[in-house]
Amino acid sequence: MADVILMAHGDGGRLAHDLVKSAFVKVLANPILERLDDSAVLEIGGRLAFTTDSYVVTPIFFPGGDIGKLAVCGTVNDLAAVGARPLYLSLAFIIEEGLSRETLGEVVASIKKAADEAGVAIVTGDTKVVDHGSADKLYINTAGIGQVTDGVQIACDAAQPGDLILLSGSLGDHEIAVMSVREGLEFSTELTSDCAPLNSMVAEMIEASSNIHCLRDPTRGGLAATLNEIASQSQVRILIEETKIPVREEVLAACEMLGLDPLYMANEGKLVAIVPPSDAGVVLDAMRNNRYGKNAVVLGEVVPGKFGRVAMKTRLGTTRVVEMLSGATLPRIC
Amino acid sequence: MADVILMAHGDGGRLAHDLVKSAFVKVLANPILERLDDSAVLEIGGRLAFTTDSYVVTPIFFPGGDIGKLAVCGTVNDLAAVGARPLYLSLAFIIEEGLSRETLGEVVASIKKAADEAGVAIVTGDTKVVDHGSADKLYINTAGIGQVTDGVQIACDAAQPGDLILLSGSLGDHEIAVMSVREGLEFSTELTSDCAPLNSMVAEMIEASSNIHCLRDPTRGGLAATLNEIASQSQVRILIEETKIPVREEVLAACEMLGLDPLYMANEGKLVAIVPPSDAGVVLDAMRNNRYGKNAVVLGEVVPGKFGRVAMKTRLGTTRVVEMLSGATLPRIC
Repeated sequence: MADVILMAHGDGGRLAHDLVKSAFVKVLANPILERLDDSAVLEIGGRLAFTTDSYVVTPIFFPGGDIGKLAVCGTVNDLAAVGARPLYLSLAFIIEEGLSRETLGEVVASIKKAADEAGVAIVTGDTKVVDHGSADKLYINTAGIGQVTDGVQIACDAAQPGDLILLSGSLGDHEIAVMSVREGLEFSTELTSDCAPLNSMVAEMIEASSNIHCLRDPTRGGLAATLNEIASQSQVRILIEETKIPVREEVLAACEMLGLDPLYMANEGKLVAIVPPSDAGVVLDAMRNNRYGKNAVVLGEVVPGKFGRVAMKTRLGTTRVVEMLSGATLPRIC
Repeated sequence: MADVILMAHGDGGRLAHDLVKSAFVKVLANPILERLDDSAVLEIGGRLAFTTDSYVVTPIFFPGGDIGKLAVCGTVNDLAAVGARPLYLSLAFIIEEGLSRETLGEVVASIKKAADEAGVAIVTGDTKVVDHGSADKLYINTAGIGQVTDGVQIACDAAQPGDLILLSGSLGDHEIAVMSVREGLEFSTELTSDCAPLNSMVAEMIEASSNIHCLRDPTRGGLAATLNEIASQSQVRILIEETKIPVREEVLAACEMLGLDPLYMANEGKLVAIVPPSDAGVVLDAMRNNRYGKNAVVLGEVVPGKFGRVAMKTRLGTTRVVEMLSGATLPRIC
């Protein structure tokens, strides 16, 4: 058996079948995937959530995670963000010729571990191999299907004036952790990505309150993008307070050194929730009782005023507009 | 507006949002996609089919199709192959920095056209941009969800001795068409890919017979891979006749010139059906009445004998084993 991936691993022949069976089906074992039909057949129904993301992070291993864990958590979190219970994932690899089987094996093991924690099954997949120089080691796409709990209506157009803005923990951990291992950018402190599946926390929040208006995980574009999207889609104005924003000391130091703003840094295990004040207490408690939300805070509120705008009361007491990022930031952080 | 894709088109900021709205949502317009939530929410249920494929074909435009049409048809056909009615697709791009907006626009227009023909809606998506040299122009992943018709039980482990093997038309058109435009390989004849959505034909076949055992579209690895997969999963032996295999004259000429075997050539608009003899006539008629199956033939049968084997009665009257491809063939044909 070749110890690196060859072009023939992607051609639908004997080697490709052996790879699928030994590297994927054996590790991710479940009865639906093992059927190896062109499509998985699932018995579900009602209101379903459906989402997709491709992952092109570099390097593919970073402190606190890897591209495989990211590919599971990112898609699980997108399902959780509409109040769905994630159930099934697809898994599609684009592999650069020459990738070692060992590396692929480590990524698949990480996928399995993350899928088990999130309680999702990988039920269908695909493998393509491209020639050396036509990809950078490994790209992964996951699509996901989840079941939306009856009665749950969570969407980014549902924020209302008076609602409170909750954030599950500190900002920027993922982006700064990835940056810390990029060539030429080393920090002395040990930073780890926050990459995590948030579906258990979301389930506990929904159990605590049937009145959550919006949920979103602030990934690429950071909290600034997430709040701007919500403000725009809900046609409301959002006001947050700078002093309330949790940022780890090491992340803040790195941001200051590099001239970066934590508001724009990507996160992979954080959640923004928009909740009416009557339910904010129980939702915040539910977040804090989960391992991934123990540093949850109230960050601000939805206020009357100019539609679609996000503003921040600064440390100095002034108020400034928080624009969506416009310009290049660190590429390929997810 | 930049006329090429920049890294910032993939960073979750202003440019990324503008691209999503102008290049994707506007063209692929439907109410579910327009919500721009983290996941699409769908009202369906029962038995669902779920599949994924990434597309890395080079060149991205070829006679008879392009990567966008391929990405829709391939996933639609995988859903149809388990007897499902394709309903919803996800669409994820990995774009190499510097791709022209015009090229991207042409691909998205082609996606829209193919999705309209197949009757599917693109309901969720993702865009990643990688640096120049970390991808080859454009890769696309589509995942798909379909509804399996009540009572339909089509799977690759369901072939039984006595069943007939039906094939919807000529072999090798897609692979030879792609090859014809590859650098350094030009043929004088005009060959076009067979890339097409087969779901209408499959629906008509299922309406004609509720007794279809297996369906599969012979893509990478060709007819040889498809029949070997069915023989292996159904634990049966398959015997086909060489003289019955439809191959276009130009494809045959190209194969002979290049030392290739049409049995291993990829197709993107062909279907293999395994049907009991009692129903083969009506299923064959249904195929022939559809524009994509008018050259359908009976190719052979499922016979008693050594499990998991595919054999072919040759032009000379001898019988040879048809192995799954083992070795490199043309890379990146889909």
